[in-house]
Amino acid sequence: MSVTGLPSVERTVASLSRFPGIGRKSAQRMVQFLLKKGGAEITNLIGALEQLRDRVCLCERCFNLAEDRLCWICSSTKRNHQLLCVLEEPSDLLAMERAGLFTGVYHVLGGRLSPLDGVGPGELHIAALEARLRNGTIQELIIATNPTVEGEVTGQYLAALATPFVSHITRLAYGLPMGGELEYLDESTLYQALAGRRDFNGPLAHTAD
Amino acid sequence: MSVTGLPSVERTVASLSRFPGIGRKSAQRMVQFLLKKGGAEITNLIGALEQLRDRVCLCERCFNLAEDRLCWICSSTKRNHQLLCVLEEPSDLLAMERAGLFTGVYHVLGGRLSPLDGVGPGELHIAALEARLRNGTIQELIIATNPTVEGEVTGQYLAALATPFVSHITRLAYGLPMGGELEYLDESTLYQALAGRRDFNGPLAHTAD
Repeated sequence: MSVTGLPSVERTVASLSRFPGIGRKSAQRMVQFLLKKGGAEITNLIGALEQLRDRVCLCERCFNLAEDRLCWICSSTKRNHQLLCVLEEPSDLLAMERAGLFTGVYHVLGGRLSPLDGVGPGELHIAALEARLRNGTIQELIIATNPTVEGEVTGQYLAALATPFVSHITRLAYGLPMGGELEYLDESTLYQALAGRRDFNGPLAHTAD
Repeated sequence: MSVTGLPSVERTVASLSRFPGIGRKSAQRMVQFLLKKGGAEITNLIGALEQLRDRVCLCERCFNLAEDRLCWICSSTKRNHQLLCVLEEPSDLLAMERAGLFTGVYHVLGGRLSPLDGVGPGELHIAALEARLRNGTIQELIIATNPTVEGEVTGQYLAALATPFVSHITRLAYGLPMGGELEYLDESTLYQALAGRRDFNGPLAHTAD
């Protein structure tokens, strides 16, 4: 038997435990917090979740999260629509936006190629990417898939796909993560950092546009 | 401007950030999890929260969390209804149940006396406690308020209140927490552990009934 004996409490604890990084104990503390705060707090959370479920969709053009037909980046006139960055997930896009350097627009694949998991080009938003490239207005395509085996393979697939349509295809630099220590870095990162070394007095970073 | 630009996402992040121990980053990860899992996952969580809000009430007798008139402990015939443990919050009760030794019933105060915060006896479930004691069936009252200044004061108040009605009034032992080290213990805990020392070959713990 559960320790509270209340099905509604246990169901909520089970629901909250499904979140990554939230264990049973944290979920119990969260439920205690809600019960202490009372009905208004729970109603407020329910309202937020209903909006999340009912309003969030994918941008028709780039497949970023959106509440309208187009996301806030695709509908912005301040972004450079000739500069396209392709990445795996909306969360990667958010990380990119937090970095603050990029002024172009995005294309979100919705995953990476992974034949073992049955994810081929048809499962990702690749046909839509090809249509955008075929259009001919993209001057630079930045491939920003994750530095994993599958992300690499996806990047190479995209580069081959884009070659007929885009003259300038780039990828994010590999190298030392800021704040890291050489002593603790894996060999392949150090290998990439050495192979990709730059002139010491050269520019710290290209501006992305 | 928020980094996602989506009011529904931001509202849910704000709602989830209200939980103790959940920061903005954790809340963002939780929202990403929900959006990745899709509408059914969110609907399931909403359903659990609605049940939590609409079904959970306080037990009429002991003020523990309940879904019926009486909680699962007050309505159990396997508990000793002559042994009463009074504590501050339902979460204290759950901790007590996890310990597994106690076979009596509870009375949950709903807080502790705190004149500075405007919490007097009228703000707690003390009148209901007095009515239960006046009834005359309680053979032992265990005072299990928290070992804080306010918890102590509340305990002393309850002991004075109970004296006319209950012959046997006890409180939880103070002393070394299991797994702790003397070196790192505060003086007042060590003081209590020394003052309350027991015969080395005596019983490890009284059974509580």
